[in-house]
Amino acid sequence: MHKKRQKLSTYERRGVSSQKEDVHKATSSLDKGLFPGAFCKILPDVLGGSPSHCNILHPDTAGTKASLAYLAWRTTGNLGHLRGIPVDALVMNVDDVGCVGAVQGILVDQTISRNSFQIKDEIKEIIESAEQFCAMLRVWRINCHFASGETASVPDLVRTFDVGTSVAVRMKRKDVIDASRVVPGDIIVGFSSTGQARWEAEQNSGIGSNGLTNARHETLAPFYRKFTQTYAPEMSRDLVYRGKYRLEDRLPEDRSFTIAGALLSPTRTYLPLIKMILEAVPRRYIHGIIHCSGGGQTKIRKFGRSGNRYVKYRPFPVPAVFKMIQEVSKLSWREMYEVFNMGWRLEMVVPDMKVANDIRKIAMDECDISAKVVGAVEEEDGPNQVIIETPSGQEKY
Amino acid sequence: MHKKRQKLSTYERRGVSSQKEDVHKATSSLDKGLFPGAFCKILPDVLGGSPSHCNILHPDTAGTKASLAYLAWRTTGNLGHLRGIPVDALVMNVDDVGCVGAVQGILVDQTISRNSFQIKDEIKEIIESAEQFCAMLRVWRINCHFASGETASVPDLVRTFDVGTSVAVRMKRKDVIDASRVVPGDIIVGFSSTGQARWEAEQNSGIGSNGLTNARHETLAPFYRKFTQTYAPEMSRDLVYRGKYRLEDRLPEDRSFTIAGALLSPTRTYLPLIKMILEAVPRRYIHGIIHCSGGGQTKIRKFGRSGNRYVKYRPFPVPAVFKMIQEVSKLSWREMYEVFNMGWRLEMVVPDMKVANDIRKIAMDECDISAKVVGAVEEEDGPNQVIIETPSGQEKY
Repeated sequence: MHKKRQKLSTYERRGVSSQKEDVHKATSSLDKGLFPGAFCKILPDVLGGSPSHCNILHPDTAGTKASLAYLAWRTTGNLGHLRGIPVDALVMNVDDVGCVGAVQGILVDQTISRNSFQIKDEIKEIIESAEQFCAMLRVWRINCHFASGETASVPDLVRTFDVGTSVAVRMKRKDVIDASRVVPGDIIVGFSSTGQARWEAEQNSGIGSNGLTNARHETLAPFYRKFTQTYAPEMSRDLVYRGKYRLEDRLPEDRSFTIAGALLSPTRTYLPLIKMILEAVPRRYIHGIIHCSGGGQTKIRKFGRSGNRYVKYRPFPVPAVFKMIQEVSKLSWREMYEVFNMGWRLEMVVPDMKVANDIRKIAMDECDISAKVVGAVEEEDGPNQVIIETPSGQEKY
Repeated sequence: MHKKRQKLSTYERRGVSSQKEDVHKATSSLDKGLFPGAFCKILPDVLGGSPSHCNILHPDTAGTKASLAYLAWRTTGNLGHLRGIPVDALVMNVDDVGCVGAVQGILVDQTISRNSFQIKDEIKEIIESAEQFCAMLRVWRINCHFASGETASVPDLVRTFDVGTSVAVRMKRKDVIDASRVVPGDIIVGFSSTGQARWEAEQNSGIGSNGLTNARHETLAPFYRKFTQTYAPEMSRDLVYRGKYRLEDRLPEDRSFTIAGALLSPTRTYLPLIKMILEAVPRRYIHGIIHCSGGGQTKIRKFGRSGNRYVKYRPFPVPAVFKMIQEVSKLSWREMYEVFNMGWRLEMVVPDMKVANDIRKIAMDECDISAKVVGAVEEEDGPNQVIIETPSGQEKY
């Protein structure tokens, strides 16, 4: 066991993976759907039987951000931390579906598995928040409805709580944004994950819902080890909460956030922005939309024509929350960009500067979301590559 | 704490509930959909925009049956135990949706949250089984397709693994079976949960996926306490695995099953049967279809016109697996019928004996599923009641 451990990364030793190699191996034989190059799996219209339509049914969870929310709630009594998790799970999901251009006629459901020894009457607050998020989207003219929820009391399975959601959409095949159209010569526009979008109630740290297992353990102090319900007992003790911060400490370089507030900052939905752009710009000019979730800034590598090199020569400045995580974790900048969004959780790939400027303007003028050209697509002799200008220099993935 | 405990049932002390009072309280303010009396929540056609259609998006999980499957796999090496869980989660779900008459154009997805310290390469087998189940349904002419899957490695959240599924359907509003049509004078037909349906590979014990937390702890011997990853550490030690059996022991009264085989027996899907019946009998003659899941044989109380008394005077004989659970747990028969299906996990409520005989015949002749009239609907002066003839006499709920 010890011999093996020496070869494993800190990530693997915590039982997580930003790239999910084993899962991809396990699912490689599964059907890829109608548009194998699209961001989500697209099925024929099983729901309606129309040859010109297609369906998506897409699951996602908030991951271990739930464990952190539980910890923050337990130590502060602030129920808002719990309420944010179903919304995080839903945003991670609808934003995936938005990447294929589905911004209307959305149904969502929610499954909460809880340890009822730890989460009792608070369940009401948790259940309700997803429905409220759907109502907010409807204010922004996105027809999204909460269909149904399941709450399982399964303390034998779950340490605190785990929230999953599914999103169902039916759309016209001709409206699908198929990222396989991304080709050399295209321009990559990034949309900031920080600041305060018009539909947000507060400043966003930029964190999203990826990489939270490591961020949590690297950031928080050993003081929190006593909350044994928040981590796996199989994990080596030296990997558990080995940071230097308390949840109420201020975030260095942006003292408007506490550590808890920065790490639990609600994942931004870009859906209203995607909708506005798709209403203003013909879909044929949007070659690809990428949600920089699992895989962080390297996610785009899986998409586009084979033989693309994605050169991100003008990344956003690193947000304070990621600087803090890098500083405490000593992760290389290379790894940071593989795990976190590092400042922009959405990218659109477009054919020219005219379109790039049009969509930047919509983001900034109508959504208060900072946007800029972060890079370009070049010809690559071989499998797709990503090159990122990181604070420690150029990294190739 | 001790004072409070004396008032709590064994169920509550294990953090589970067959009636989910707190969850129902939490969701009581949520919108009930187009047909508030239907078995599943029915929404307007958000997916298609047609006024004559409606949508369902319905989540469910396999619950703590996963914990037992993990234990059986760890102690025997038989991967089949793990493979069964996604199918259980899916069956619990599609059978719910079948109860409103949705038997075509079904999309399903799957979310697996796993502790990657405990479940490693076995994930491949687990992921694949749901897709194989959909293929089986297609053989039975049910157009069910696996849309997408998410596998999260979250050891900080999950002790072993937890499997959730969602089912999406779009159907004509006029085809919805709305159980509010159930009225006094109707007849209740039960469909056996035991035996071997034509689409099953082996004999079914009848267990389903409800009540497994208690069944597991009451049945299995303290020997299994060393598998601490299979139960909540918050649970009082005297409630953990306090039965007398090993997994490989034979089931008393039906030695063709081991204890593991009986408790993990795949949840039967009734979907092919429901489809055959709805093809043979006009829908107006099927007043209600009830999936006896959470709440067991009292589930029907939530459905039908208000002021119904459901008298189940001719229950099925108690299957061997439930006799064993009752014997080790000392649960009253009253409670057994509130938790488990006790022999029939599906009921149809029909207006007369002619229809009752027609649907019985389809079950027996075309599906090899035993079926019979189990009771009738009478007039009740007040809220709905259920009366069941149990082995210890008549019980009123």
